[in-house]
Amino acid sequence: MLKTLSPLLLALMATLASGGPALAQDLTGKYNKTPTGYLMVLRNGDDVIAHLERLAVIEQIPSASIVGIGFMREATFGFYDFGKKAFNPKTFKDVEMANLTGTVAWKEGKPSIHAHGIVTDGTFNGAGGHLLGLTVGTGSCEVTVLLHPQRLDRFVDPSIGANVLGMHPGAK
Amino acid sequence: MLKTLSPLLLALMATLASGGPALAQDLTGKYNKTPTGYLMVLRNGDDVIAHLERLAVIEQIPSASIVGIGFMREATFGFYDFGKKAFNPKTFKDVEMANLTGTVAWKEGKPSIHAHGIVTDGTFNGAGGHLLGLTVGTGSCEVTVLLHPQRLDRFVDPSIGANVLGMHPGAK
Amino acid sequence: MLKTLSPLLLALMATLASGGPALAQDLTGKYNKTPTGYLMVLRNGDDVIAHLERLAVIEQIPSASIVGIGFMREATFGFYDFGKKAFNPKTFKDVEMANLTGTVAWKEGKPSIHAHGIVTDGTFNGAGGHLLGLTVGTGSCEVTVLLHPQRLDRFVDPSIGANVLGMHPGAK
Repeated sequence: MLKTLSPLLLALMATLASGGPALAQDLTGKYNKTPTGYLMVLRNGDDVIAHLERLAVIEQIPSASIVGIGFMREATFGFYDFGKKAFNPKTFKDVEMANLTGTVAWKEGKPSIHAHGIVTDGTFNGAGGHLLGLTVGTGSCEVTVLLHPQRLDRFVDPSIGANVLGMHPGAK
Repeated sequence: MLKTLSPLLLALMATLASGGPALAQDLTGKYNKTPTGYLMVLRNGDDVIAHLERLAVIEQIPSASIVGIGFMREATFGFYDFGKKAFNPKTFKDVEMANLTGTVAWKEGKPSIHAHGIVTDGTFNGAGGHLLGLTVGTGSCEVTVLLHPQRLDRFVDPSIGANVLGMHPGAK
Repeated sequence: MLKTLSPLLLALMATLASGGPALAQDLTGKYNKTPTGYLMVLRNGDDVIAHLERLAVIEQIPSASIVGIGFMREATFGFYDFGKKAFNPKTFKDVEMANLTGTVAWKEGKPSIHAHGIVTDGTFNGAGGHLLGLTVGTGSCEVTVLLHPQRLDRFVDPSIGANVLGMHPGAK
């Protein structure tokens, strides 16, 4: 009995050990494979970044470009303060995501989603920038993923102190 | 003679019966087939949503993602008021469409375009959200259509009272 | 010896003769070919429009659609004044490019990039429109290029006095 269970236990232990939000999502019924990549539709309460990380892991996406729209319960953007070496964040609630654009790559063995966006509310004024967090609201979030076959990694460019996308593994 | 004409008459009657703005557009010379879908260029006075609906019908697009830019005579956005169960609309005139993003799917047998956008005027301030209407102005509107082979339908999710995109026919 | 060199000399002379910023960029290591086109990553100080023009020349891109994000040292937008027949420009410095969208085509034998964008700063307010110039800042600029096989040219539509994208060579 123990012998039979051990592969499952090992898989479970591996899952728990690697941990992180990327592994907490169930993507069943949330995306289709397309000739150029994937189409993902997320629903009320879904964490968009975590679902994209999970998709990258499940489908072993080497790299990809993403574009999307949706209605968001919460969208948090950050503007980088190079003096403080930290993002100043701002959260917008119950907003239309007029556009979501970004890339899927890897960093230190984990999926790395770089996404920007613009949101609007009842005033129709646009706001946004670099996304730190994104949760779907009372609507759907439709994300188109254009798949690229090259495995790409992000790294910190020491000359600017910021993350950049490398064009080949081990780029710097 | 009547016998010869009847297929044409039937087709004409079917066209008139299905009616609607989707069938009122002539797309001749307005789009090219590409390896990944279509590239459509619309001109002064063209109704963008109606042309996309017409393209979906003519090319029998199962589903697609769209991205575009252009100069607009009129762009009307709506922000949904869940209390009133209606969109509060606002129209912007003679604006750059900085970005148009959306999806093509179907609802109750008719093409259903879900599009968001951001427009700017001489102040350069961005405004937008969910598009209700869009007419090209004194420039062109260039729309890239990424084709997906899965037939997708929108439906109202009763738990949120809003349209969502289903990932398979009959989804709910 | 002269005979052996002459093709190289002719090529050099052709390069110098065609001149312009499109030929001043070295794209080595800045882009990958993908199944649907190219993925280009530009770095601190790179001129985005000039690099896209150079890519169009090197790869002989017939036409393409582009989408991107990045952090910009400088983004200059122009809103067209039909009375003055000129763009009123405005430059934004050290901003996130929330979205960049456009097309690659040709005009009078030279690559013609039509790009729109939205930028944000520490206030998160969105601004943008038609891009006149774009220089990468302390981050990277990731541009996805979706390739189309049709050679497309822009031309001035005399009925509106503005550039439009023709759907076939010699369109008007």
